[in-house]
Amino acid sequence: MSLQHEVKALKKFVRAANYLSVSQIYLKDNLLLERPLQHTDIKPRLLGHWGTCPGINFLYANVNRLIVKHQRDFMCLIGPGHGFPAVQANLFIEGSLSHYYPDVIPYSEEGMKDICRKFSQAYGYPSHANPEAPGQILEGGELGYALAVAWGAVLDNPELIAVCLVGDGESETGPLAASWYANRLVSPKESGAVLPVLHINGYKISGPTRLGRMSNEEITQEFTGLGYHVLVVDDEREEDIYEQMAKAMDEAYAIIADIQQRARNGEDVECPRWPLIAMKTAKGWTGTKEADGKKLEGNCDSHQVIVNQCAENPEHLQLLNEWLASYGFHELYRICDDQSIEFDDDIRGLIPAPEQTMGRQKLSYGGEVVEDLVLPDLTALAYGNDVPRGERGYSMLKMGEWLREAIRLNEVKSNLRVFSPDETYSNQLQAVFEVTNRSWQWPIKSWDQDIAREGRIIELLSENLLFGMLHGYTVTGRFGMFPTYESFAQVIASMADQYCKYIHASQDVHFRKPVPSCNVVLSSLLERQDHNGYSHQNPSLLASMLEKHPKIVSAYLPADANSTLVYTEKAFVDRDKLNVVVAGKKELPVWLTLEEACQQAQDGIMTWDFASDEDPDVVLAGCGDYVTQECLAALVLIRERLPQVKVRFVSVTELTSGGLGSLKYADKPYLLDEFFTKDKGVVFNFHGYPNTIKKLVFNYAGVKRFRIKGYEENGSTTTPFDMGVRNGTSRYHMVIDLAYKAFQQGVISEDEHATVTTEMLRRLVEHKEYILKHGVDPEEINDWQWQR
Amino acid sequence: MSLQHEVKALKKFVRAANYLSVSQIYLKDNLLLERPLQHTDIKPRLLGHWGTCPGINFLYANVNRLIVKHQRDFMCLIGPGHGFPAVQANLFIEGSLSHYYPDVIPYSEEGMKDICRKFSQAYGYPSHANPEAPGQILEGGELGYALAVAWGAVLDNPELIAVCLVGDGESETGPLAASWYANRLVSPKESGAVLPVLHINGYKISGPTRLGRMSNEEITQEFTGLGYHVLVVDDEREEDIYEQMAKAMDEAYAIIADIQQRARNGEDVECPRWPLIAMKTAKGWTGTKEADGKKLEGNCDSHQVIVNQCAENPEHLQLLNEWLASYGFHELYRICDDQSIEFDDDIRGLIPAPEQTMGRQKLSYGGEVVEDLVLPDLTALAYGNDVPRGERGYSMLKMGEWLREAIRLNEVKSNLRVFSPDETYSNQLQAVFEVTNRSWQWPIKSWDQDIAREGRIIELLSENLLFGMLHGYTVTGRFGMFPTYESFAQVIASMADQYCKYIHASQDVHFRKPVPSCNVVLSSLLERQDHNGYSHQNPSLLASMLEKHPKIVSAYLPADANSTLVYTEKAFVDRDKLNVVVAGKKELPVWLTLEEACQQAQDGIMTWDFASDEDPDVVLAGCGDYVTQECLAALVLIRERLPQVKVRFVSVTELTSGGLGSLKYADKPYLLDEFFTKDKGVVFNFHGYPNTIKKLVFNYAGVKRFRIKGYEENGSTTTPFDMGVRNGTSRYHMVIDLAYKAFQQGVISEDEHATVTTEMLRRLVEHKEYILKHGVDPEEINDWQWQR
Repeated sequence: MSLQHEVKALKKFVRAANYLSVSQIYLKDNLLLERPLQHTDIKPRLLGHWGTCPGINFLYANVNRLIVKHQRDFMCLIGPGHGFPAVQANLFIEGSLSHYYPDVIPYSEEGMKDICRKFSQAYGYPSHANPEAPGQILEGGELGYALAVAWGAVLDNPELIAVCLVGDGESETGPLAASWYANRLVSPKESGAVLPVLHINGYKISGPTRLGRMSNEEITQEFTGLGYHVLVVDDEREEDIYEQMAKAMDEAYAIIADIQQRARNGEDVECPRWPLIAMKTAKGWTGTKEADGKKLEGNCDSHQVIVNQCAENPEHLQLLNEWLASYGFHELYRICDDQSIEFDDDIRGLIPAPEQTMGRQKLSYGGEVVEDLVLPDLTALAYGNDVPRGERGYSMLKMGEWLREAIRLNEVKSNLRVFSPDETYSNQLQAVFEVTNRSWQWPIKSWDQDIAREGRIIELLSENLLFGMLHGYTVTGRFGMFPTYESFAQVIASMADQYCKYIHASQDVHFRKPVPSCNVVLSSLLERQDHNGYSHQNPSLLASMLEKHPKIVSAYLPADANSTLVYTEKAFVDRDKLNVVVAGKKELPVWLTLEEACQQAQDGIMTWDFASDEDPDVVLAGCGDYVTQECLAALVLIRERLPQVKVRFVSVTELTSGGLGSLKYADKPYLLDEFFTKDKGVVFNFHGYPNTIKKLVFNYAGVKRFRIKGYEENGSTTTPFDMGVRNGTSRYHMVIDLAYKAFQQGVISEDEHATVTTEMLRRLVEHKEYILKHGVDPEEINDWQWQR
Repeated sequence: MSLQHEVKALKKFVRAANYLSVSQIYLKDNLLLERPLQHTDIKPRLLGHWGTCPGINFLYANVNRLIVKHQRDFMCLIGPGHGFPAVQANLFIEGSLSHYYPDVIPYSEEGMKDICRKFSQAYGYPSHANPEAPGQILEGGELGYALAVAWGAVLDNPELIAVCLVGDGESETGPLAASWYANRLVSPKESGAVLPVLHINGYKISGPTRLGRMSNEEITQEFTGLGYHVLVVDDEREEDIYEQMAKAMDEAYAIIADIQQRARNGEDVECPRWPLIAMKTAKGWTGTKEADGKKLEGNCDSHQVIVNQCAENPEHLQLLNEWLASYGFHELYRICDDQSIEFDDDIRGLIPAPEQTMGRQKLSYGGEVVEDLVLPDLTALAYGNDVPRGERGYSMLKMGEWLREAIRLNEVKSNLRVFSPDETYSNQLQAVFEVTNRSWQWPIKSWDQDIAREGRIIELLSENLLFGMLHGYTVTGRFGMFPTYESFAQVIASMADQYCKYIHASQDVHFRKPVPSCNVVLSSLLERQDHNGYSHQNPSLLASMLEKHPKIVSAYLPADANSTLVYTEKAFVDRDKLNVVVAGKKELPVWLTLEEACQQAQDGIMTWDFASDEDPDVVLAGCGDYVTQECLAALVLIRERLPQVKVRFVSVTELTSGGLGSLKYADKPYLLDEFFTKDKGVVFNFHGYPNTIKKLVFNYAGVKRFRIKGYEENGSTTTPFDMGVRNGTSRYHMVIDLAYKAFQQGVISEDEHATVTTEMLRRLVEHKEYILKHGVDPEEINDWQWQR
């Protein structure tokens, strides 16, 4: 087909999509403009973002053209998800909406009327891209994440091209700004390609954009510097922009094909210069040009609903009528005998075969593309039953060994990756480098270690970029982990929230199937910031995620290395969730056999019989590995000092926003009596903020029973033990708190209480003096032995 | 002085600073290398980040040279705050440490020994830049924020040049990537200049950096595209890098002076091309080159402590000895008669006059530079006492008017700015444009509104950049506000955490004086996302900040427009805090007179007598403006249906992590009995997550008394009333909950309870049907009238 003919078809396609976009925003009746508009045809609430829609339609049509031409897998990620009417219009035209919703949105005039009537109506279709819409793999609305997600989607999908529309508003965000850097991480040999299309329409909601005021030369310079092959498409040039765009898409496709071919034929493609299209079209292109003396097209005033008084103002109504009529929508389709519609031949020529449409892209809805991970044998990795309780072990080293085995076992499937902003070594996961490398497309020096063109590990010091890639990788059916410094996990708090919203909203969508969970591993915990300090002590992500729906978010705080192995496996077996795994990277006692750890992981809470007395007077609980160590050390002390006090130790290893332990306890907190008794005092030592536990036990018991200790924002560069001293979570504090509970319950006398408290306070003072003098913790802190 | 002589002096200065950096990391004894090192001279815990130190020292010396040469205000922000030994070394040499800590760190050998001995020791000096160190305006440690903070510091300080060292690791983060864009926001006429120095040492903790593997041409291209004048200083060039750097600094200074002069002489400087220095030096420059067969200098292996076995390994000790000796530190100073030290003449020539040293930069410690804001007259702005209770008003419009007046009143002081990522108009603050503009250095088009080269409003769609600028602006003593969409405030969660850490750690530092608070305004609240949807419904920042220390963070949730005015003023009067103000932007009833609003703001909690019965049977509480409206509407309903039930309404407008209301209640929750009674049931309707209130009331009362309602992550694009229906916070739900509490307490019969519950459930169903049919809320929802 000649370019002229293709351009003609593209124009028709976009006219149809634009018409359907506009009618969704404005019309409740006369949806196909069968007569001149009346005020009563207008919706009572005019919502939606028109300004970005024509650009989305323009791109979508052009991607369809490439699909038809090359018969290849494409996805389209729409950064400006606010322009949902455009997304929906295209999903309708290509038939994927009718495929998934045949009764509600038939491929007929009725179907078109349905999407118009219900757009942004309560219980209708939201105004942003959303999981109810086929083909979408992120919630539209919060800007900045589309490009990172696109890079994640193409990993290990060598045939996939993910076209990503990046708005010029969106491109001002930090997460987006860092996402450009992914071009030097992803291997063109083992993975697919991202084609970023920078949509420069010049404006945000009430002002110009940065890119909109840059010259084409500056834009080319900036993105060439960032390593891209920049193709500018500009509506201010003489050449028809449709021709420019079709040519740019062809050129981009050819560049991608060339890079991939070279890389896959054995050439070492250093710094692949992927194409990027800078697409400059007017905001609100094809819309009303001016109203009420204000410039609309090509200005921020067309960001949302223009001529928005059309329900009352005859002039506005007239402008809307002219605007809608300008698309000549009726010329673009006919009604068949069975009432279904058939678009014009040219438009149909641009609609891919049903299974190749982007709405039906199989990577976008989980399910059939998800292949279970082959799981390593935990027995071979765990500390064995011959290891005495309390012997030192390493949680993160074990997790690294698990990952090493999992990468090995799933090598052929190529469906497991680690996204590591704070660096794999630093979080003690280096065992993975026995079987894989860090993927790196920049030059590699002779002294570089564990770096190669291909590798399962993605490392760059950008939490935002890497979490976005994990999102893209997992929602397209693969398995991933994001191990990061606990304190810096907050950087991705908002992205994690949006991920949860996507998964939450997906759950009720019939065609979406479960996807592997998104696993965030927090290590380099606040208790061990020997090299660092106060800035590195922040358990806020854990706290924040425990506000989310309990079905979507679990926090796993394994108590030791074997427990870490069990929860690592669990995290990868979970589906449709975000898991937060909290595990320290320094040596800590191993408390549980593998069997015990598995048993505890059933409910996320367990009485440790080996450390507990029958019929207890007081209960000590620990949640977090370092504080668990302090709890057990406190038990040794209290049994020496106050043998008459019967203590039970309860270990909590799972939290949800519904409460302590697994979901089982969320609706039935009274079941927790099994662990905490009905009425005994409880001292609860927590890794994070005390407030976090307060909200979780609120439905179960109050401050009179539960004394909750945790991180109180008292920190600095200091010794591990001193962190406990500063925050009241040390073993001595536990003894003091337990003794007080025992005294309150009449188990010990006032004298006994005073004696033990005085001794503990004295030891706290002595230890601080020792630390001040020697700069390290006293030997008895590190060398204590668990004994019963 | 000739360049050769200057270079000689710079080299000596850096030798001294490097020596003191290394000795801080390693030595506990023989700190001045008075004899060959022994194993026992080595600290027991070797901590710190050597790799970045030499670059910091190199830059600091070069900035000192400019200060001395030009006698001008400079600050130095060190992005790689991990390299604290270098910061500390320079603060010592220039004398500012001894100025602030004359007894502990005298300007003598004893002073040098003190900083070495206590570096990264518990209760000594942290390993990252921190507020205890003079001249620092952010916590070192979390990377990515230095550049944005620097841009904030220079605003309205036209004579200031903030040199900002940006690490190449740091530059991979999203927040940093977007910070480059500030060059087109800040006016060269009214504000000072930032000189970014990109420290490309090529490596992070365990691998190469992006910038480290780019060619000088690519670097130049990228940053030229970003609008900078790029000056490359490269240790691989033949020319001595000291000469290169001194020349580059001179050139940068000249470019800055030229831009400023032109702008201040009336020229319209569009797109000022500020200088940027790309400084390429080896990681661990001047350190041990190789050990154990590993490349150290110029490789990631010199990131932290190298030759770290020197306490035991003779070879390591020997290498450390050679390394330290290589600086010839003893040649660089002499001891005076009074035991104080005097550095070599050349070094002294580079030390600015005491008050010009960067450690004593007056902008860095609050206090004397803080001029109180002239506060607008609230009476003139508030809704008057003649407005009937329940009449509609606009909180954010009022806040905009307050800002307009404040900007006007403080025009001469130039000490108030608004940093608005989501756009000022959209959050209804447009009254400010009556007196100011958005500051914008790109081209301005004829149709642009409220945009000019100078202006008090900083707008760009990057939460990260703008919050960083607010941090820089406020800690240097000025007043600022960050109004943002509630849902996207999470983007800056981590930055807010680090801000709080800085303020928290500052409190105990004797020379730091109070600074204006950092005010985050959350608007476009979850209840009103008519245009948007689920992605825009996220009260997580509010939840997360309420884990922070109650002295540092207050959340203000004004109940109406007058209350908003009062809290706006309070937020600007507060010092050394981060305030989160939560206020809706749509019309809502005005409940309080200005006097009442002021009274309530004393304690952050008040019984609304006008809406309450004496001696109540049940208590209804509201926190948040939209939910307060539902509470009052529920009171009207319940008094019609169940007049025998006596209800008190308690409005909560302040929260801290310590509990409900102001700090007064944090330690004494029993004082809340005044509002909630001792034992009556309480129904608590909250704007955010119920878990947030659960943690705050935990110390006061439990689930049996408090029924807590709030946002349960049930959302979409829907009507305002429907959001309440979905999340159980509507007026009808309140009636149901109150009736249940009244029934539990025997105030109403089972029949009465059943009747009213049935009616409310019926109305919920009818309303949903109405919304489904008409797409808007039923009239009775919007048109209800408050009556007593």
